[in-house]
Amino acid sequence: MNQTNIALLGFGVVGSGVYRILTENHDDLNHREVLDLHVTRILIRDAANVRDFALAPQELFTADYGEILNDDSISIVVECMGGVEPARSFILQALRAGKSVVSSNKEVISKHWHEFDAEAKARDAGLYYEATVGGGIPILRTIMDSMQANNITRVMGIINGTTNYILTKMSEEGLDFDEVLHEAQSLGYAETDSTADVEGYDATYKLSILASLAFHAHLPVSVIPREGITKLSRRDFAIARQLGYEIKLLAIGKKHGSQIEVHVHPTMLPKTHPLAAVRGVFNAIFLTGHAANDIMLYGRGAGSMPTASAVVSDIICAVHRAGRHRYITFANAEELSTAVQLLENYESRFCARLLVEDAPGVLASVAGVLAKHNVSLRSVLQPGESDTTDARLTLLTHNAAAQSVRAALAEIAGLSCVRAVESLLHVEE
Amino acid sequence: MNQTNIALLGFGVVGSGVYRILTENHDDLNHREVLDLHVTRILIRDAANVRDFALAPQELFTADYGEILNDDSISIVVECMGGVEPARSFILQALRAGKSVVSSNKEVISKHWHEFDAEAKARDAGLYYEATVGGGIPILRTIMDSMQANNITRVMGIINGTTNYILTKMSEEGLDFDEVLHEAQSLGYAETDSTADVEGYDATYKLSILASLAFHAHLPVSVIPREGITKLSRRDFAIARQLGYEIKLLAIGKKHGSQIEVHVHPTMLPKTHPLAAVRGVFNAIFLTGHAANDIMLYGRGAGSMPTASAVVSDIICAVHRAGRHRYITFANAEELSTAVQLLENYESRFCARLLVEDAPGVLASVAGVLAKHNVSLRSVLQPGESDTTDARLTLLTHNAAAQSVRAALAEIAGLSCVRAVESLLHVEE
Repeated sequence: MNQTNIALLGFGVVGSGVYRILTENHDDLNHREVLDLHVTRILIRDAANVRDFALAPQELFTADYGEILNDDSISIVVECMGGVEPARSFILQALRAGKSVVSSNKEVISKHWHEFDAEAKARDAGLYYEATVGGGIPILRTIMDSMQANNITRVMGIINGTTNYILTKMSEEGLDFDEVLHEAQSLGYAETDSTADVEGYDATYKLSILASLAFHAHLPVSVIPREGITKLSRRDFAIARQLGYEIKLLAIGKKHGSQIEVHVHPTMLPKTHPLAAVRGVFNAIFLTGHAANDIMLYGRGAGSMPTASAVVSDIICAVHRAGRHRYITFANAEELSTAVQLLENYESRFCARLLVEDAPGVLASVAGVLAKHNVSLRSVLQPGESDTTDARLTLLTHNAAAQSVRAALAEIAGLSCVRAVESLLHVEE
Repeated sequence: MNQTNIALLGFGVVGSGVYRILTENHDDLNHREVLDLHVTRILIRDAANVRDFALAPQELFTADYGEILNDDSISIVVECMGGVEPARSFILQALRAGKSVVSSNKEVISKHWHEFDAEAKARDAGLYYEATVGGGIPILRTIMDSMQANNITRVMGIINGTTNYILTKMSEEGLDFDEVLHEAQSLGYAETDSTADVEGYDATYKLSILASLAFHAHLPVSVIPREGITKLSRRDFAIARQLGYEIKLLAIGKKHGSQIEVHVHPTMLPKTHPLAAVRGVFNAIFLTGHAANDIMLYGRGAGSMPTASAVVSDIICAVHRAGRHRYITFANAEELSTAVQLLENYESRFCARLLVEDAPGVLASVAGVLAKHNVSLRSVLQPGESDTTDARLTLLTHNAAAQSVRAALAEIAGLSCVRAVESLLHVEE
């Protein structure tokens, strides 16, 4: 059998895991997949990011990308550097040289997908990126190779492990955000600069890829509204628990005919929902298709070996499918596809928590404003105990237009009997 | 693009769903997959089993398999008849004629896989059977196309929807088995003859396929010990709840080096385990790989459209992979592969419930017998209240050899202070 030579760009958490699997499992893969896979070059730019130099022979390492690009014996380039540049240029150059590219880099794929796809198609090269969403969970291949019979109408995902770890701790131990964040940072579950995770940016990159594949229309990162988890308090979790809900940072996409909504934010889910049971650093993606109905995939969304598992699976697919790679030619790849419209004023259920004056007539005033904006209430929670002149009012709405709910709450915030709108969460069932 | 002609064998629940998807989604599949798929023949043997004749034009139906076999324009035969014969002969004949076969029939695939695989390989024809395990859940394709980098060491599945529906009702509503079975039968969730489901036969067919693929070694149905759910009582659920567990019918496979254990039986799972949250007719399969770590796939394990979703996905793969089909050539396909050994005396945790005399010294006697058989206890539950001379004793063991536990319980059943060993359940964590 022919030897397949592979170059790794980056030798950090993911790259070293890929090297480990390809080396340790070489004979198994040779036997089962009839493939002879070898890493023959490893590009490093910053020796400080190299996880374990001792893992690979020193002669494999290079700092000169030209040595990889001009090496015709290398047919697959694995990009696991992260960030946009130089990853973007390296990927484009590899594709132009006719090499297939496997990437675990959600940021560069979500932002430059259309460029990569056009280049890959022009050169008959493969472009694979399973590891960009859900780490070791094979969600993209499931959508592309197992759900073809379906019109997918909904994706809902817990696709950021750091935030799910924090939310699980807040829910189960009654802790506050800052407390858990510090613990997560000291355990290595959160970065020192955790903005990309806790503010939901990372989830928007992944949702862009996930929803674009599920709905067969390009949904760029720029169209995805985003809200992080930093404003959640232990009071939110206490109320969710009382109502039988969990709070999760969900990436949500829904398709209604040609209208598509996509958004990332903390969401209340009933405790009986399969996503509500996803704890700690685990990820899960829930899909609804017209034929398969509800499907959920659960697993480790990050980490060296789980992510490397997805990368190696992509490498194997890239070899097996040589000459038959599939491309995602969206109608208008750089922007939102013209065949669909973005539904910005989507409908959802909401849960709002208000700090109000503890006096008669408050609920009537609040409910009056909601009614004016066509927002109808499913239930109202007003704890009896009150040792101050303030009280807290929790409102659960029926399905209502998001913009109407926000407009109503802005008006409610201005009522003299209302001290503050303390939180507004989406609710899914 | 070339037209692909497909014949359906059977037009019941699955066949009619496949027809519906291929007809209603024809244009979508044409656009996205660049395929022109047409059902040009439907074999029916018994008009009474035809779900809806009006769904397809009358001229497609035939009772003569020769018309399909000898029609060179038909390249794919979809077998969804169920049972062993004539499905087995029809599949072999189709493969011999060089046609690819897609089957949703777990019984015939699990029992005659090696024959089909050898024939398919000899003729360069495809053999696809995603729908045989987990209905609409793409578990087999996940193992084959996404988990290649992994040494899979464990599979645990809720792979029978009927029994999971019954167990969920027993757990959540405190009902007894017979009561729920009758309700499930009247709702169509259970067959009039429910033996294949409630006695676990259906799960053994599926586990044979699932574990053989996961462990790369043929594990025939005949080597799988099986226990159904008919002996479970509301008392089992009450105790499980008290201990923080659910009871599920699990199909379990584990690999320890070259030793493999496979078994199907009611199992206690902690309520925090993702499989414990799988309710009603849903199925889920939990895998552990050395790289991806824990993965779970959840969805509808049966039903017309979910199963048809998997069948249509197989049809699409069969066309895309023409000339590059993969085969499972196990070392010794008809029997257990010689490269592995069946571990019959596997280790597990167990939960035993005894009806004992309410007298001093009983626990000492019971514990003495367990110790003699090298079975050590993790905890003992002896409810305080007792209005008779009898008491119930619940024993949770540490990991212990299954045969030792059974031998110990046989001896315990013979103690004069023990009225009966009322139940013995496996426990997984």
